[in-house]
Amino acid sequence: MSNFDEIVEICKRRGFFWPSFQIYGGSAGLYDYAPLGTILKENVYKIWMEEYLKIGAIPYDSPSITPEAVFRASGHLQRFADLATTCEQCKSSFKVESLLSNQGINLVPLNEDQAASLLLDNKIRCPKCGSFLKNAYNFNLMFQISSNGNEKLYLRPETAQGIFVNFKLLLTYNRGKLPMIVIQRGKGFRNEISPRQAIIRQREFNMAEVEVFIDPSNKSPFYPDKGEVITLLSNNGREQKKDIEKAFEEGIIGTPEHAYFMEVTLRIALRIGIDRNRLRFRQHRKDELAHYSSDCWDLEFLLDEDWVEIVGISDRGQFDVKNHQNSSGQNMSLGENGDIIPKVLEPAYGIDRMIMAILSSSYNKRESGYKVLSLKEEISPYVLAILPLQKKDGLTERAQELFNALRQIESRILFDDSGSIGRRYSRQDEIGTPYCITVDYDTLSRNVVTIRERDSQRQIKEVPIESLMEGFDFLNNPILQKFE
Amino acid sequence: MSNFDEIVEICKRRGFFWPSFQIYGGSAGLYDYAPLGTILKENVYKIWMEEYLKIGAIPYDSPSITPEAVFRASGHLQRFADLATTCEQCKSSFKVESLLSNQGINLVPLNEDQAASLLLDNKIRCPKCGSFLKNAYNFNLMFQISSNGNEKLYLRPETAQGIFVNFKLLLTYNRGKLPMIVIQRGKGFRNEISPRQAIIRQREFNMAEVEVFIDPSNKSPFYPDKGEVITLLSNNGREQKKDIEKAFEEGIIGTPEHAYFMEVTLRIALRIGIDRNRLRFRQHRKDELAHYSSDCWDLEFLLDEDWVEIVGISDRGQFDVKNHQNSSGQNMSLGENGDIIPKVLEPAYGIDRMIMAILSSSYNKRESGYKVLSLKEEISPYVLAILPLQKKDGLTERAQELFNALRQIESRILFDDSGSIGRRYSRQDEIGTPYCITVDYDTLSRNVVTIRERDSQRQIKEVPIESLMEGFDFLNNPILQKFE
Repeated sequence: MSNFDEIVEICKRRGFFWPSFQIYGGSAGLYDYAPLGTILKENVYKIWMEEYLKIGAIPYDSPSITPEAVFRASGHLQRFADLATTCEQCKSSFKVESLLSNQGINLVPLNEDQAASLLLDNKIRCPKCGSFLKNAYNFNLMFQISSNGNEKLYLRPETAQGIFVNFKLLLTYNRGKLPMIVIQRGKGFRNEISPRQAIIRQREFNMAEVEVFIDPSNKSPFYPDKGEVITLLSNNGREQKKDIEKAFEEGIIGTPEHAYFMEVTLRIALRIGIDRNRLRFRQHRKDELAHYSSDCWDLEFLLDEDWVEIVGISDRGQFDVKNHQNSSGQNMSLGENGDIIPKVLEPAYGIDRMIMAILSSSYNKRESGYKVLSLKEEISPYVLAILPLQKKDGLTERAQELFNALRQIESRILFDDSGSIGRRYSRQDEIGTPYCITVDYDTLSRNVVTIRERDSQRQIKEVPIESLMEGFDFLNNPILQKFE
Repeated sequence: MSNFDEIVEICKRRGFFWPSFQIYGGSAGLYDYAPLGTILKENVYKIWMEEYLKIGAIPYDSPSITPEAVFRASGHLQRFADLATTCEQCKSSFKVESLLSNQGINLVPLNEDQAASLLLDNKIRCPKCGSFLKNAYNFNLMFQISSNGNEKLYLRPETAQGIFVNFKLLLTYNRGKLPMIVIQRGKGFRNEISPRQAIIRQREFNMAEVEVFIDPSNKSPFYPDKGEVITLLSNNGREQKKDIEKAFEEGIIGTPEHAYFMEVTLRIALRIGIDRNRLRFRQHRKDELAHYSSDCWDLEFLLDEDWVEIVGISDRGQFDVKNHQNSSGQNMSLGENGDIIPKVLEPAYGIDRMIMAILSSSYNKRESGYKVLSLKEEISPYVLAILPLQKKDGLTERAQELFNALRQIESRILFDDSGSIGRRYSRQDEIGTPYCITVDYDTLSRNVVTIRERDSQRQIKEVPIESLMEGFDFLNNPILQKFE
């Protein structure tokens, strides 16, 4: 099994995520977050939200259901499509771009004709049945919804448009001041031709989008300053490890706001525990830019030997707001005249992919072969597991009592009394719980417990229960430091 | 304006919620949570989650998009419908039940024929154009989604089914132990014939559902014990103010688990600040029970002279799990034989309606006519506003400096320097901020500020800034107590 497959196996077995609706044969590209994954996801959202509130962001929440007029204006109705091909023999459908890239051809066809030619010229065969593929057509990725009446409705493919259409209301809310950072967590929906890689490419997925509105007539209010070093791959093919601030100064990154939000993004990725050495920023080639984007840097993660986009930081310029002004006939500008349209920079986070990156960064095997998720305390589904040493002599009852007491001050806590203590430790290792508290005979006689740390497997004995009850501050004062 | 209309006016003007997609003429039954509402909503979810984690609940998250097989088994495909009528003259559509209830006829028609007869016999006219209404038909409330391929997909009308179909995986996750409390926050979607009352009846709405799985062969593991007193309206028409535990003992509430979760629900409603005197539990009449329910108590809130359901606590018995076992052919029982199917009790929370209940409970007018939202500290979008007394002599800069420092320890904090100090106080009153900190000349000379409390309008002077920097614990140590 590959590293990726091993992680997916743990995630399914332990309860991070499960393919949805399996009792009915499943439904491609839909996943449930199982209990552990649900908590992990909430923790990621919480950190993302915290980092953005700290820099003055305004939260927002618009519906998934969206009327057609919005996507006509945004261009999604006409252009948010993949070029697809359907095998005439076995009727399977594929994305042309993926078929080409599997053959080492990294090229995005411009239209149906070019796509069909590329299939024919390169003698591309159907991956399912082996027949030659010939046709190509545009396949819009938006789900349409049936409704009563004449209104055409879609499920949003991104949360962004809900913010753009209400830019003026938001500007008034913000007392007319720019820059304005609006953030939204929510679902996106895309009718993917070939969903794959577990939660990496789903038809319904978790997003966290940021729309930064900037006055184009002023000097940029954002400027990089963190001196973060990361690999940067420019669209001229040049790759270098570089301080983001320096990369802006040398013209590798085009605008100071782009560099600033690349820094914010990198800070979040590192805080949630993604491995710095498996991250890079890659600038989009001109031919792969989305229809609304003039420049885009993706934060990519090296997953199973492939670079996967986990965040896209796109310069949308005046594209969206201007189009909504033209289509709606409403003034969407900064002033009364409709002439000064704000610029928009959009850092868009794929929460599911960030979670896969966290899991992959945290996964390792001990020499013994046992598997461990070394999740950071701040992000792990549970922080503490309370385990009775054995299931006799009142140890279970004492452990249960301690569990009930500690649950009042820490909700990310588990109780486990099934199987041997060794098996229970390794179960906690697999779900990433950093600390196990063992209730043993010393607990009964002297009110002390043993704390076992996940990564080092060290045990700290003789920790008084009353010191546990003072509460934990795991981030700033890890238990291990407290009692060593 | 009614009390309800006044609140909606504040909510739109100040930025709690806005009708969606207004620049394109809007879309019925869809609302955006504007910045203040988004934060308020997150606070409500947080408290709901906390209260359930405390009693051992397991969080879960399944997709909105759901294949048809699920809703065929659950009965939604056949029975999750309203009887509707369409005016032959003006083509407007209405829910028959609502039209009847507007005429004082509280009756749910059983089928299309009965509905049509009731319209004719009672000479019901179209509320839009005045023509007599004649026809009636079943209108399924689920949105269908277009998809590639043959798969029929719907948007879920409740989050519950995503949990039921994976009951066995969840049971394994929980080491085979019952009771098991599974909770899910997420969106529900219903193609309402007549959405209305702002966020009260929407086509896309925020839910928080709880599925409590209980072993039917054991004594109930849940038992009421809080002694909470509340108005109870039974389906025999009898209304009484009563302790929930006593109401169970007297047979008014049918099962101990039903009474227990009514207590949990009441506790949450009171904690988020809903007015106890405007709450009641009402038991469903037999003819209004949903197709899956054998008994249901709604927590209702008195809004604008109407009782509105904000939580439904429904006894779903073995209905759903049994149907999924039959339809899927998979064993969904507690053991190997497929014979012991768990019972389910479902407390389902309408988050949007709870928010409306909070806002309505908190709204009041001063003698001066100024409007105030007396939101609890735990729930208000912002806890603190930092205001310079005037916009000169460096007061703004000092206030901004204090704001930046305090933002590091408290994210629910605002800065406001526009308009007179009186206007700024009343703005904070309208958005429910409990404390304003005014930076004045004493701040410049002696590092002290004035704290002004929202509800009493009292001002506490001479509060040293360094004591603010120690951090706040608003719930347990309100600022006012600290410095008085």
